[in-house]
Amino acid sequence: MKNTFGNNVTFTIFGESHGEEIGAVIDGMTPGVTVDEEYIASRLALRRPSGRISTARVEEDKFRIVSGVFNGRATGTPITILIPNTNTKSGDYARTRALARPGHADYTAHVKYNGFEDYRGGGHFSGRITAGIVAAGAIAESALAKKGIKIGTHIKRCAGIDDAQFTDIEKGIDILHDKMFPVLDDAMGEKMQEAILAAASDGDSVGGILETYVTGFPAGVGEPMFDSIESELSHILFSVPAVKGVEFGAGFGFADLRGSEANDPMRYEGDKVVTLTNNNGGINGGISNGMPIYFKCVIKPTPSIFKKQETVDFINKENGELELQGRHDPAIIHRARIVIDSVTAMVLMDMLTGRYGADYFAED
Amino acid sequence: MKNTFGNNVTFTIFGESHGEEIGAVIDGMTPGVTVDEEYIASRLALRRPSGRISTARVEEDKFRIVSGVFNGRATGTPITILIPNTNTKSGDYARTRALARPGHADYTAHVKYNGFEDYRGGGHFSGRITAGIVAAGAIAESALAKKGIKIGTHIKRCAGIDDAQFTDIEKGIDILHDKMFPVLDDAMGEKMQEAILAAASDGDSVGGILETYVTGFPAGVGEPMFDSIESELSHILFSVPAVKGVEFGAGFGFADLRGSEANDPMRYEGDKVVTLTNNNGGINGGISNGMPIYFKCVIKPTPSIFKKQETVDFINKENGELELQGRHDPAIIHRARIVIDSVTAMVLMDMLTGRYGADYFAED
Amino acid sequence: MKNTFGNNVTFTIFGESHGEEIGAVIDGMTPGVTVDEEYIASRLALRRPSGRISTARVEEDKFRIVSGVFNGRATGTPITILIPNTNTKSGDYARTRALARPGHADYTAHVKYNGFEDYRGGGHFSGRITAGIVAAGAIAESALAKKGIKIGTHIKRCAGIDDAQFTDIEKGIDILHDKMFPVLDDAMGEKMQEAILAAASDGDSVGGILETYVTGFPAGVGEPMFDSIESELSHILFSVPAVKGVEFGAGFGFADLRGSEANDPMRYEGDKVVTLTNNNGGINGGISNGMPIYFKCVIKPTPSIFKKQETVDFINKENGELELQGRHDPAIIHRARIVIDSVTAMVLMDMLTGRYGADYFAED
Amino acid sequence: MKNTFGNNVTFTIFGESHGEEIGAVIDGMTPGVTVDEEYIASRLALRRPSGRISTARVEEDKFRIVSGVFNGRATGTPITILIPNTNTKSGDYARTRALARPGHADYTAHVKYNGFEDYRGGGHFSGRITAGIVAAGAIAESALAKKGIKIGTHIKRCAGIDDAQFTDIEKGIDILHDKMFPVLDDAMGEKMQEAILAAASDGDSVGGILETYVTGFPAGVGEPMFDSIESELSHILFSVPAVKGVEFGAGFGFADLRGSEANDPMRYEGDKVVTLTNNNGGINGGISNGMPIYFKCVIKPTPSIFKKQETVDFINKENGELELQGRHDPAIIHRARIVIDSVTAMVLMDMLTGRYGADYFAED
Repeated sequence: MKNTFGNNVTFTIFGESHGEEIGAVIDGMTPGVTVDEEYIASRLALRRPSGRISTARVEEDKFRIVSGVFNGRATGTPITILIPNTNTKSGDYARTRALARPGHADYTAHVKYNGFEDYRGGGHFSGRITAGIVAAGAIAESALAKKGIKIGTHIKRCAGIDDAQFTDIEKGIDILHDKMFPVLDDAMGEKMQEAILAAASDGDSVGGILETYVTGFPAGVGEPMFDSIESELSHILFSVPAVKGVEFGAGFGFADLRGSEANDPMRYEGDKVVTLTNNNGGINGGISNGMPIYFKCVIKPTPSIFKKQETVDFINKENGELELQGRHDPAIIHRARIVIDSVTAMVLMDMLTGRYGADYFAED
Repeated sequence: MKNTFGNNVTFTIFGESHGEEIGAVIDGMTPGVTVDEEYIASRLALRRPSGRISTARVEEDKFRIVSGVFNGRATGTPITILIPNTNTKSGDYARTRALARPGHADYTAHVKYNGFEDYRGGGHFSGRITAGIVAAGAIAESALAKKGIKIGTHIKRCAGIDDAQFTDIEKGIDILHDKMFPVLDDAMGEKMQEAILAAASDGDSVGGILETYVTGFPAGVGEPMFDSIESELSHILFSVPAVKGVEFGAGFGFADLRGSEANDPMRYEGDKVVTLTNNNGGINGGISNGMPIYFKCVIKPTPSIFKKQETVDFINKENGELELQGRHDPAIIHRARIVIDSVTAMVLMDMLTGRYGADYFAED
Repeated sequence: MKNTFGNNVTFTIFGESHGEEIGAVIDGMTPGVTVDEEYIASRLALRRPSGRISTARVEEDKFRIVSGVFNGRATGTPITILIPNTNTKSGDYARTRALARPGHADYTAHVKYNGFEDYRGGGHFSGRITAGIVAAGAIAESALAKKGIKIGTHIKRCAGIDDAQFTDIEKGIDILHDKMFPVLDDAMGEKMQEAILAAASDGDSVGGILETYVTGFPAGVGEPMFDSIESELSHILFSVPAVKGVEFGAGFGFADLRGSEANDPMRYEGDKVVTLTNNNGGINGGISNGMPIYFKCVIKPTPSIFKKQETVDFINKENGELELQGRHDPAIIHRARIVIDSVTAMVLMDMLTGRYGADYFAED
Repeated sequence: MKNTFGNNVTFTIFGESHGEEIGAVIDGMTPGVTVDEEYIASRLALRRPSGRISTARVEEDKFRIVSGVFNGRATGTPITILIPNTNTKSGDYARTRALARPGHADYTAHVKYNGFEDYRGGGHFSGRITAGIVAAGAIAESALAKKGIKIGTHIKRCAGIDDAQFTDIEKGIDILHDKMFPVLDDAMGEKMQEAILAAASDGDSVGGILETYVTGFPAGVGEPMFDSIESELSHILFSVPAVKGVEFGAGFGFADLRGSEANDPMRYEGDKVVTLTNNNGGINGGISNGMPIYFKCVIKPTPSIFKKQETVDFINKENGELELQGRHDPAIIHRARIVIDSVTAMVLMDMLTGRYGADYFAED
């Protein structure tokens, strides 16, 4: 379905970096879900470049909700969110159009779209498009929170530096919720930012790993085969630009475990089944088991760097060199966090609506 | 869509470990595609337990194709493949029904299906179901091969032991194609098997990492956002039982690279654009760039072990202990290989059919 | 999705007239739904040719359910129903392969499938395929009945003769439920059958109109635009071979009504909203209003006739004449009835599951 | 998928009668397709109320295309069209909110959306929403025309008056293309308009039948069962507000034909297979046969009338009477025409793209 995702609650996104507006359409949301524009704005702020470690391009993200919301509540029909692009400098890009930026989609877009792609600023491939996802995700995220389901993501690793581990998961999620640079240990966060600035001063960029926890998700949701929670989540996580790996629970660490270490022993805690470890990340056989769901995404280094790079001129079909100028992020991992939270919220809302019906997220 | 996957070519799977038949329905395949039953049988053989390191349960996998094939060719209407279950010993499982096997889906299935699940041998959650996938995938794989697209997977790591790296990728794929224990370096393969047997003698099991290469895939296929190649592939890879992590190209290694190392410099080689490195695994912005596509999947250790495990009795709602008996694999990674190849073939066939139309795989 | 239909409960069908087996896969049914093989057999009997007015080809329809049912209940995973083809006489058809039967899909299948179609007996286009639909629909129909939702269809018109109108709808549905020739007025039914035989003796065939009523369907189900009840129902009704028109409520009669006649005045009857007329067929804006849903389908005359017909030889690309021999129905309308009931049950089950969640059809 | 339709080219629509903006998102269109804003405007003009026989509410339909078009060409990524609502008089409707308008979706929307529906002017159920469909359809329609595929619709019957029949179909389509009141015989059109005005002067409304022809559509497109051309077309035709019946070819007339009359004899005309009659409306077995595709839709009388009507007050749960005031159309059939053309263009574009691939509509 290309730019539409979901079965029962669907999300459609559109727009280009330098087009007129970007946005999203959300369809199938439970009627009556609160749509809080201030909250949406606060989540968009987390995605926006800010501080020393981000691009100088700052959009105000003055979104408008033009359908599907009436008196502050979802009507149940499509919610359309529009975000105008205001701060576009197309001239920066047109100069170098013919030269593919390595690590970007310039060349692949050119082949796929037969030369008709909007190449300005990466067009539809720009991270800018994720603003629509964040706005949509903010609505989903707050609806989930009212059902006791919380999502939190931290930078687990960046530029070779590790954040602390989650100890009290619920509390960790709360701490992270509004942080611009989402780490559990601020001292480590400072070091990460230093390392990012060091890369920036070299005209270079860094990547990292985001770790996401979901608490309060009920057991018995998901499907055994093609629509396992892992399948659904990874589908949308890999649609976030720069994500190149996703692992659930112990993930690639399973390779070096034995079954006796990897299996999570089970116990009743009162009426509730829990596991004593959670290597499976809250999911068995594609279905939630009631424990926290957690996963990690790797974010590759921002491909836009200022160093000279070998590349191709795919218009003139010859080799060339590229030295980018303009506005670029030396790291996007801190900004990608809210996008990961948002797509997670979207897919979980879809799954829960499929499992429990269209009124699952009803509010008074 | 639960047990149906795909947009233009769809795959539906069904069956339970101890049910009457398992199987698959493939819809939308180009009319005229050769369906070679001997080839299918040879691929099913790779999935079947064999040798010292597998369960003693051996099914003959005497499949029947009951629709969609006429005179050895796909008609274009649904191809249905049936594989009877013959060697079932339900008694083994009924004894311990109430006790959830840690790491398995017994408990989550019970919650999801309200107690109506077919619990015998893991029911629909059994790896047995993947036989239908392999049969379907074999048809897709040979159709892809006729278009010059090849898929090969090796055990990159198992029980702490690493296989050699791919050097000549095409050649490596050919070497691996019919190997029962798919490694590039047989000496390492021997060591892995020793380690598996060592785990087995402890009543334990091991996991590992599979690495898959796809060559010959044309540039310009895939979608920018929700249907990126990574999204589509990961969706179906995570539907393979035991897969808990997927990474493309440098994957989680990107976390420690700088952009200048991670970006793949581009060059014309004659008319063809190539990259000098391939950290992006043949995919930029979700779209193929013409370089080999490669990815890794982690396979968790087989959860069925013979050691005593703490668990819950979810019928009587009390804690208990489980000591499994019967037939189990100390490792499934070598058998999972052909399942990974198969789902890869299925999703690539679907994508190519969407991109180039229903006749893309036409044969004379 | 070609041969798969549905969003939350999906139905996949497969098979050819002279292939080995035909069948259906149903996915997403509420776990615990009763699967009564005798009831399925009784519904298949209604589809089977019988009596003076049908083809002499009679299949026993000895179906097998090979997955998804355990102890007589749906498990929630895919239910696969297989029906072997036993009474095939391919020789009858191979003779005339090159000559397109007018009104059939021989020529269109040949163009679409590039000559690889299974042409024996109409292949996948044969009415035979609907046996799988009926078996699947029987499960859905009985699950709906347990929720108080009943479906009934009569032959409203056949060969120029009209059946009586429904008076007491519930009672009419009950009367029709097991009738082989489903009319409300048996005297009219006799006349229809005489007319069918008269056509048969001319080597000709007749068509007619089926009218279907659904009672007990809750208000507030359906979608405003692309997934209106009319859209969903018509989609699957038009997939039944020979259906060439579908109308809801007053249908084409609306053309000659004024708004004041067409609008259905509304009234509270106790707590329940009813309409004094039901021209809208129980649906407003694509959504159910709690009144009976009703619609009509026209069934075109069986295209297989014994009269000489002008046609083309699409292999030798020349004009020709066709004089069919073998076994054919002079009317299929009485047999099509149960197919219409079945697809109606399937789509309503899907809609209700989407609206109220996966457990909507739970039974004790 | 609720408000998203299509498999390879998808259409998403959104908006409410009195919301801020309505619109559509089109995804998957061949890159390079010309997007001619003047042409879109000219098609929107056909939908807009005009002349003596329409509502006094006239929107300018000043649309904006905010994504997916670059230098006048489709980029291949989502095209978003926005149309602001400017001329809204919500006060007219709020007065009577609690009183369901018979024949409208007020009551069903209230039940479905649990009271959170945007009730102003019918909200998402308003015919206003079809402006987005027309804008999207205009792009599809002109792309089809460049492939030699033309679509034309006339008012076959209105208020008891019949238009002339199509004689030369191609020529008829051309004549109808820009007519505000689309009839083949203008004298009959005058009579229809008189009859509409007569109904209007009674405070009443009328319905009618639209007949649509498609020429130039290639043979071999469509699917045998659930995605037959009839299934796909009817799905989207029934999503057009007020459509309550759809028939293909001879349609309900088949009920009174014998097979020998209904079957269309076939002949080679040069290299091309034609049928001597076209009772099957260009479709056999769900697949196009190369003859013109044609179908009829019945449009029910506009439910908004000025006569006093019995109804319910679903807020206070009591019976009431309704006397509408404000702006209403005594007929919408002439305006519905372009909506029918548009959805037809949309679904045919989707089908052709699935059959022949993503580049089917490529232009220089």
